[in-house]
Amino acid sequence: MDHEQVNQHLIDHWNNNLPFNKLLGLRITHCNAQTSEIRFLWQDKLIGNPVQKILHGGVTASALDLAGGTVAAANIIEQLSDVSPSSIQQSLSKLGTIDLRTDYLRPGRGEEFIVTARIIRSGSKVAVARMEMHNEKGEHIAFGTGTYMVG
Amino acid sequence: MDHEQVNQHLIDHWNNNLPFNKLLGLRITHCNAQTSEIRFLWQDKLIGNPVQKILHGGVTASALDLAGGTVAAANIIEQLSDVSPSSIQQSLSKLGTIDLRTDYLRPGRGEEFIVTARIIRSGSKVAVARMEMHNEKGEHIAFGTGTYMVG
Amino acid sequence: MDHEQVNQHLIDHWNNNLPFNKLLGLRITHCNAQTSEIRFLWQDKLIGNPVQKILHGGVTASALDLAGGTVAAANIIEQLSDVSPSSIQQSLSKLGTIDLRTDYLRPGRGEEFIVTARIIRSGSKVAVARMEMHNEKGEHIAFGTGTYMVG
Amino acid sequence: MDHEQVNQHLIDHWNNNLPFNKLLGLRITHCNAQTSEIRFLWQDKLIGNPVQKILHGGVTASALDLAGGTVAAANIIEQLSDVSPSSIQQSLSKLGTIDLRTDYLRPGRGEEFIVTARIIRSGSKVAVARMEMHNEKGEHIAFGTGTYMVG
Repeated sequence: MDHEQVNQHLIDHWNNNLPFNKLLGLRITHCNAQTSEIRFLWQDKLIGNPVQKILHGGVTASALDLAGGTVAAANIIEQLSDVSPSSIQQSLSKLGTIDLRTDYLRPGRGEEFIVTARIIRSGSKVAVARMEMHNEKGEHIAFGTGTYMVG
Repeated sequence: MDHEQVNQHLIDHWNNNLPFNKLLGLRITHCNAQTSEIRFLWQDKLIGNPVQKILHGGVTASALDLAGGTVAAANIIEQLSDVSPSSIQQSLSKLGTIDLRTDYLRPGRGEEFIVTARIIRSGSKVAVARMEMHNEKGEHIAFGTGTYMVG
Repeated sequence: MDHEQVNQHLIDHWNNNLPFNKLLGLRITHCNAQTSEIRFLWQDKLIGNPVQKILHGGVTASALDLAGGTVAAANIIEQLSDVSPSSIQQSLSKLGTIDLRTDYLRPGRGEEFIVTARIIRSGSKVAVARMEMHNEKGEHIAFGTGTYMVG
Repeated sequence: MDHEQVNQHLIDHWNNNLPFNKLLGLRITHCNAQTSEIRFLWQDKLIGNPVQKILHGGVTASALDLAGGTVAAANIIEQLSDVSPSSIQQSLSKLGTIDLRTDYLRPGRGEEFIVTARIIRSGSKVAVARMEMHNEKGEHIAFGTGTYMVG
């Protein structure tokens, strides 16, 4: 497998096997070593404020963290010379979020939400990603910054 | 109703009516104008990493945000001279998370998780809270800081 | 005075009267309600690490905070219908940094440093700005996010 | 030298040789692998807002970053079995701030400022510290959280 095939394999694996992402309906729709994209649809169970009918802030943070973690994972994999399953698994076992900042810009309203992430610091031990969340109308709902352990 | 009764009323309301908190099993167990406590039990659907069987980082962020938002709400209410339902509802309609930082210290493992929040900045427009999450063994899993619009 | 003249007046005032900015050599070179720019030259007294000869992290944070605060101030002024000196002074007396996050991407090396800020959340009480710092070669040294009290 | 002697040696070295810390008057007054303390006196050149006569937010961020970096350095050194000068120098050459969050709680007024830091996450690659700044009256001026590369 080349790196692109590995990324696609991981996207499939993560979309099908991560319980909390499935619970929230978060789907990885794109991922390479520099950028990733997550999409999810409005569901009433994601409501944080029933009067205003807006997303819980934790849903937004979850989606931003997934987007950042996904691009950090692809960034790890790109640096591997050996892309055997055991090598990949060993490398990804080190992946973890160190810290995450979420800036809430507008109430979380919409039919679909699109989160994009891009790597702003890439290293052998730590990666930093910036994330943005918009709804289907292009309204900017949130910004985020995540620091990830990658090695 | 005095302020303490209002707080208890809000705890009951929030525990029974916020869809995302119910989905995750987050329960407010204490709340006044200075401190709050949230508890939730391990459930497999909260898993973020199925190999390591640890909480999704978004679960932790959700619980920290709820704890911070709860104590910020109680802080708003304490400053009200009029605690009629309409006055409370109007005041709480302004409540919103501006930003949230989560620091992940240890993998999210345990049977029960306890999140505590306390107000570190109290004002008529903005409140800031600091949060901590431990498991039932007292292991420190995460720290957080949240900035909330309160007026 | 129109809003542009007010901004230029404030730039002059701040560049000439803020002791800490003068100590560090921080100069506001552009400012309107959406974006601002700060520039400063390398000076040995700004060194944080004498072995590596790089900027102290606090210098970077200071420059980012100034850039964010400047654009937040211009954002306040743009919302004023009355731009008399007393009205401006009263409005700016409420300005203050609530929180600031700095992400250090590369060592702070260069001859000149350019910080740009732009507003990502604009409100009557709170504004949020994102900042970037590059050196004269275009190398990206730091990112920042600041939350400001504006009303 | 034992670890305590190494720490004292580093405190002396840093207090005497870091240009920006000297410019601001920041002095390390205590440091071990778990906690550190920085003190500095009010000086007019540290003013950010000449009308209100309060510290520039960058001064506060600088002091918090120094406190966090100092305790992170001592944490690195404690993990070394070999405390020879070359071993220490090599280890400390990896030290760097990844990100820093500062929460401003009250205006920076006072005659002396005391910053304390403590390690909340200790690892072979990344350490996280929490910081607090008070004035001589015990008024709480700022909180901070810093993530440091340590290996």
